[in-house]
Amino acid sequence: MASLLRLPSLLSPSKPLLRRRLPAARLAASAASRGQASAAAGAAAPAAAETRGGDREGQVTPRSADFNAWYTDVIAAAELADYGPVRGTMVIRPYGYAIWEAIHPEGRMITCAAVSVVMIKSLCNSTPVGVKFVHFCTKWDYLNVKFKETGHSNMYFPQFIPYSFIEKEASHVEGFSPELALVTIGGGKELEEKLVVRPTSETIVNHMFTKWIQSYRDLPLMINQWANVTRWEMRTKPFIRTLEFLWQEGHTAHATLEEAEKEAMQMIDVYTKFAYEQAAIPVIPGRKSRVETFAGANRTYTIEAMMGDKKALQAGTSHNLGQNFSRAFGTQFMDENGQIEHVWQTSWAISTRFVGGIIMTHGDDAGLMLPPRIAPIQVIIVPIWKKGDEKAAVLEAVDSVQKILKEAGIRVKVDDSELRTPGWKFNHYEMKGIPVRIEIGPRDVTNKSVVVSRRDVPGKQGKEFGVSMEPSILVNHIKGRLDDIQASLLQKAITFRDSNIVDVSSYGELKEAIAEGKWARGPWSASDADELKVKEETSATIRCYPFEQPEGTKKCFMTGNPAEEVAIFAKSY
Amino acid sequence: MASLLRLPSLLSPSKPLLRRRLPAARLAASAASRGQASAAAGAAAPAAAETRGGDREGQVTPRSADFNAWYTDVIAAAELADYGPVRGTMVIRPYGYAIWEAIHPEGRMITCAAVSVVMIKSLCNSTPVGVKFVHFCTKWDYLNVKFKETGHSNMYFPQFIPYSFIEKEASHVEGFSPELALVTIGGGKELEEKLVVRPTSETIVNHMFTKWIQSYRDLPLMINQWANVTRWEMRTKPFIRTLEFLWQEGHTAHATLEEAEKEAMQMIDVYTKFAYEQAAIPVIPGRKSRVETFAGANRTYTIEAMMGDKKALQAGTSHNLGQNFSRAFGTQFMDENGQIEHVWQTSWAISTRFVGGIIMTHGDDAGLMLPPRIAPIQVIIVPIWKKGDEKAAVLEAVDSVQKILKEAGIRVKVDDSELRTPGWKFNHYEMKGIPVRIEIGPRDVTNKSVVVSRRDVPGKQGKEFGVSMEPSILVNHIKGRLDDIQASLLQKAITFRDSNIVDVSSYGELKEAIAEGKWARGPWSASDADELKVKEETSATIRCYPFEQPEGTKKCFMTGNPAEEVAIFAKSY
Repeated sequence: MASLLRLPSLLSPSKPLLRRRLPAARLAASAASRGQASAAAGAAAPAAAETRGGDREGQVTPRSADFNAWYTDVIAAAELADYGPVRGTMVIRPYGYAIWEAIHPEGRMITCAAVSVVMIKSLCNSTPVGVKFVHFCTKWDYLNVKFKETGHSNMYFPQFIPYSFIEKEASHVEGFSPELALVTIGGGKELEEKLVVRPTSETIVNHMFTKWIQSYRDLPLMINQWANVTRWEMRTKPFIRTLEFLWQEGHTAHATLEEAEKEAMQMIDVYTKFAYEQAAIPVIPGRKSRVETFAGANRTYTIEAMMGDKKALQAGTSHNLGQNFSRAFGTQFMDENGQIEHVWQTSWAISTRFVGGIIMTHGDDAGLMLPPRIAPIQVIIVPIWKKGDEKAAVLEAVDSVQKILKEAGIRVKVDDSELRTPGWKFNHYEMKGIPVRIEIGPRDVTNKSVVVSRRDVPGKQGKEFGVSMEPSILVNHIKGRLDDIQASLLQKAITFRDSNIVDVSSYGELKEAIAEGKWARGPWSASDADELKVKEETSATIRCYPFEQPEGTKKCFMTGNPAEEVAIFAKSY
Repeated sequence: MASLLRLPSLLSPSKPLLRRRLPAARLAASAASRGQASAAAGAAAPAAAETRGGDREGQVTPRSADFNAWYTDVIAAAELADYGPVRGTMVIRPYGYAIWEAIHPEGRMITCAAVSVVMIKSLCNSTPVGVKFVHFCTKWDYLNVKFKETGHSNMYFPQFIPYSFIEKEASHVEGFSPELALVTIGGGKELEEKLVVRPTSETIVNHMFTKWIQSYRDLPLMINQWANVTRWEMRTKPFIRTLEFLWQEGHTAHATLEEAEKEAMQMIDVYTKFAYEQAAIPVIPGRKSRVETFAGANRTYTIEAMMGDKKALQAGTSHNLGQNFSRAFGTQFMDENGQIEHVWQTSWAISTRFVGGIIMTHGDDAGLMLPPRIAPIQVIIVPIWKKGDEKAAVLEAVDSVQKILKEAGIRVKVDDSELRTPGWKFNHYEMKGIPVRIEIGPRDVTNKSVVVSRRDVPGKQGKEFGVSMEPSILVNHIKGRLDDIQASLLQKAITFRDSNIVDVSSYGELKEAIAEGKWARGPWSASDADELKVKEETSATIRCYPFEQPEGTKKCFMTGNPAEEVAIFAKSY
């Protein structure tokens, strides 16, 4: 039965590489003419989208020409996501979802286990390969492993929250009420109490924690959920800010402030390491200013990433909630001395926005560029032949190389479709951001070698000819290249980041840096009002007080008063 | 830092085993007195719930006395789920979520990969253990593996669907409109078009498929998503029927009716094997009657399970949607001859309801009973000592046994808490349904042996003394027991099922069988009206026309006309 069905295909070479960009009006007309609901082309639907074929196939807007257009073009061309029918919603397509699966570990480990059988069989002969493989595996599931290692259990809370819950914590309701989606009708009837579609779960979590926590023995209570959340955003952008998005949200309750603070710090550290080690994004971890702190938190820690257009992206946050929610919801426990106390809490989250961060950190004019550790496909093999009698030998070599790499735990795919030329495939898989391409032609077969190209090094410079097909040499070579690319992407991003952060010692210098699109870092101890003035005048906000602080005495660049810390200002998504 | 935090705890021995069952009124008062929202105790909130401690700890209603009360008691006592603040919603607690994770593969494979390192190291010395382990691993992620093996990719669709979409397919809107939750306010404003919180995704999937499918080369298009769905149910029951639930929904589009039919059949076959092989639930696969077919499908296939009270549970369905949605949404493709055709489609789903099916198939008066293959914890080790000087030796042996089992890929947990007695722990982990218990006391340490108890065989009969601690003997013994239990649970369920299905040849016999709470199986070719009459008069519905049919000519037990098939009638959840 299975033979009738197509094999798993994250990439679909049978589909046109790119969609032509059409003016929004024409798009709407085209949708309407195909009998689509008018909702399909909402006012906010960007121009880059849906139509197939056409004369501009194979092109995306150059990144340098228009970063935003480039971003949406790449998302369409690499088939990462599509617009949903409701304004601001997004359909995450299989390839985009596979990248999210590298963060959110849904079923991705399968490949590993399946391969394990082969690995284990071959292992007793050649040890190092297998161990490396397992190493790869574990990393693939990085975040969930870290959450469990640090004591958190997964669970699931309902997404409908009584409206009255949201109102209980004053700053929480102030922060979230403009963004709520409300269910008012259920089963054909007007509801007595409106239900909020969760924008975040602190309130319902505390409602339940109040039932579950009685004594210090019930603490710490540490949970996590992978879920969808809804925020009625006015300006949306795929992955970065959508009406509905996917995330994980951790929630913990502790007996002391110190423990909650340690937990909040620990989780921002987990995110930081994930960003550096897996996504090759050199985020700057730090503390948010009071103005930018989460609605309901005492302190918010953040990781801030610099995108390719130098704008900042808040890529993950961890909050010390103090007793704000426990007081609002009466979440109390009896301590070891028999005293009743409110619990101390944290929450922390990372979302599908991180996928947008990966695109905008590493991508270039040729499309997406994925760090090997999170790439759903690490190596694409393209067979090349001209004469019919070359085909069999080439495909046999391709098959053998694929097996060798698979057994070594490398995520590899072959594209032997005859509908497309090798040149088309090269472009296609560059657009998809696959780190390494292997070409095998008749001459390679004769020489028992392959051609290896790096996605991150364009042209001849990134090409190596005559790499031996001998299993141990090939595997070492490819693993080496994947490691090189991973390291190189990180290094490139660090260099880019550091060359675009300017140390400022006056407001004038800050204005200049921001006007150039850069980040400004300088001593700051001025008021919230001053911070808002900077935002109004420059569009830059305090991204964070970085954990890493320069030594020595500091003077606030705005007021001239002593300052304890430097802050980083930048325009942001 | 981590040392301050509690290790992952799916089971929390520090918490009271059972919650006292209180009359609903007292519960509500208790909630109110603790400052809970009044929504907390909705009209439908069952009596078994939230209060801690009390005089009836350690007891659940006997299964034979009141099956429904037993079910909710077990869910509370085994800490599987809790009621959410909104009527009909459920919080899935860590232990319940871990069972769902055995179906929905979220991060569960981690343990495997972590263990792999150890395994691989020890493997070259003793081969079979490692291979068995991998075997275990792969099974743990059964469904997602099968979905990918059969060619499906995971992706994600938005949960908000324009109301107009639901109206497009006539029988779909008829079936679902009474159950819809509607978002009417977003970002503080009344929406122009109401949004449906997805009850299922056929409509939005087709809206997108229409954009993605142009040619036969785009087919088959085969996707799956793991998501939450909302149905405004009036009568709810944890896991079985909740306002919001978690599921996977597969959606496919094909070029021919035959291919769609094969796909629908293939997926019900995947579900059937999952039920038998993993959950030890001997479901009966078959075809739904016209009356019971999914709203929008041409044919619905189902797996029907017999619960411990003999009621039927529809545990998974697979639909051949024909061209119903493709016509409603204009989902067309150009075939190989250049003709424009509508695609042929399927959809199929399995949900958190399956967790309820596991509870109600295997549980007994002592609580939950989990089949080893889906048990989050397969073996619980309880140390026993009286004198202080025995403790160190016992704990050392416990630690060593734990390591041995872990290295063999067995999911094992130690409870060395001193807050509870061994007897309390025995009851506690029986309630949690853990398949095997190992006790280790001072005498066992001396003898270098352990005591092994089976959850499924009560009392002394299920106990084995003097099982050697020698790694290979112990591992083989425990693996053998786990296999025995898996097989025995299935066999017991088959026997129970078969002894409660009555072959009937008249309506009188059907009434009698149904009145006894049994399933009735008999030849049927009567009208939809007759089927509804049976439902009205007996509360039984056609669960399915089973795939497995008796040979020979048949006469409809209702009309006396020739019948092609037997149907199974039963009361159901």
